[in-house]
Amino acid sequence: MGDLTIRRAVAADVPAIVAMLADDPLGATRESPDDPAPYTAAYVVIDADPHQMLAVAERNGQVVGTLQLTFLSGLARRGATRAQIEAVRVASGERGSGLGATLMEWAVEQARDRGCGLVQLTSDTSRTDAHRFYERLGFKASHVGFKLDL
Amino acid sequence: MGDLTIRRAVAADVPAIVAMLADDPLGATRESPDDPAPYTAAYVVIDADPHQMLAVAERNGQVVGTLQLTFLSGLARRGATRAQIEAVRVASGERGSGLGATLMEWAVEQARDRGCGLVQLTSDTSRTDAHRFYERLGFKASHVGFKLDL
Repeated sequence: MGDLTIRRAVAADVPAIVAMLADDPLGATRESPDDPAPYTAAYVVIDADPHQMLAVAERNGQVVGTLQLTFLSGLARRGATRAQIEAVRVASGERGSGLGATLMEWAVEQARDRGCGLVQLTSDTSRTDAHRFYERLGFKASHVGFKLDL
Repeated sequence: MGDLTIRRAVAADVPAIVAMLADDPLGATRESPDDPAPYTAAYVVIDADPHQMLAVAERNGQVVGTLQLTFLSGLARRGATRAQIEAVRVASGERGSGLGATLMEWAVEQARDRGCGLVQLTSDTSRTDAHRFYERLGFKASHVGFKLDL
């Protein structure tokens, strides 16, 4: 399959990341890959923020996976920093290859390197395969995730 | 009951916030209010971060509530910024007074002012009263929240 590299995203990766966000049962209704402007604007904010890291996995010069890590300081749990993972996606041709687990293990390692006490994420209740995947990686489904659209 | 002020926390509020974090069935096992150093260190990081706002509610010169807001940029949902709420606490003497709802409505208003597309939070599965409270405020329990302790 060729070597895999996981690295910080650059601006040129944004279209490939957006394509993966849109190639998903939930993302298909929420994304507009033909209109890059809002994505580019968000990328600039993320990239300038030292508490954020947007990552991509690359194989043979192709972006094949992505996730976003945020390092959240808080007072709770004796001032613990939490690593939060959002927007995990694997390109359709790579699903089932173990790339998702490799990407998540890389993210957990980044969290350890930053001294985080906890890694957290939420997953839509409809994504039952993803829930089993996170549990296999050691995550506990201990919380209910609430959202309010504005 | 006296007028209520909701404002950004200052360093002098940290002991009162930590006391509220510890005065809670889950927090009691996780916090160490007698050792302020890790809390003070975390406060400095939060306060310096333009994407974070630690807030307190004050009545008659007393801190009676707190929550932490984080403004998270992301590519998903057409580059939407999410407001995330963590560590919502109301002092024991104020529970049932409507302060929790006032504090949450203030947080949602801050999110609107910043142009956020979504407000999100997670709540431990054991906090069933809190779940009803968030649903009354319009939040949907649409996600499962996963945590991995490091």
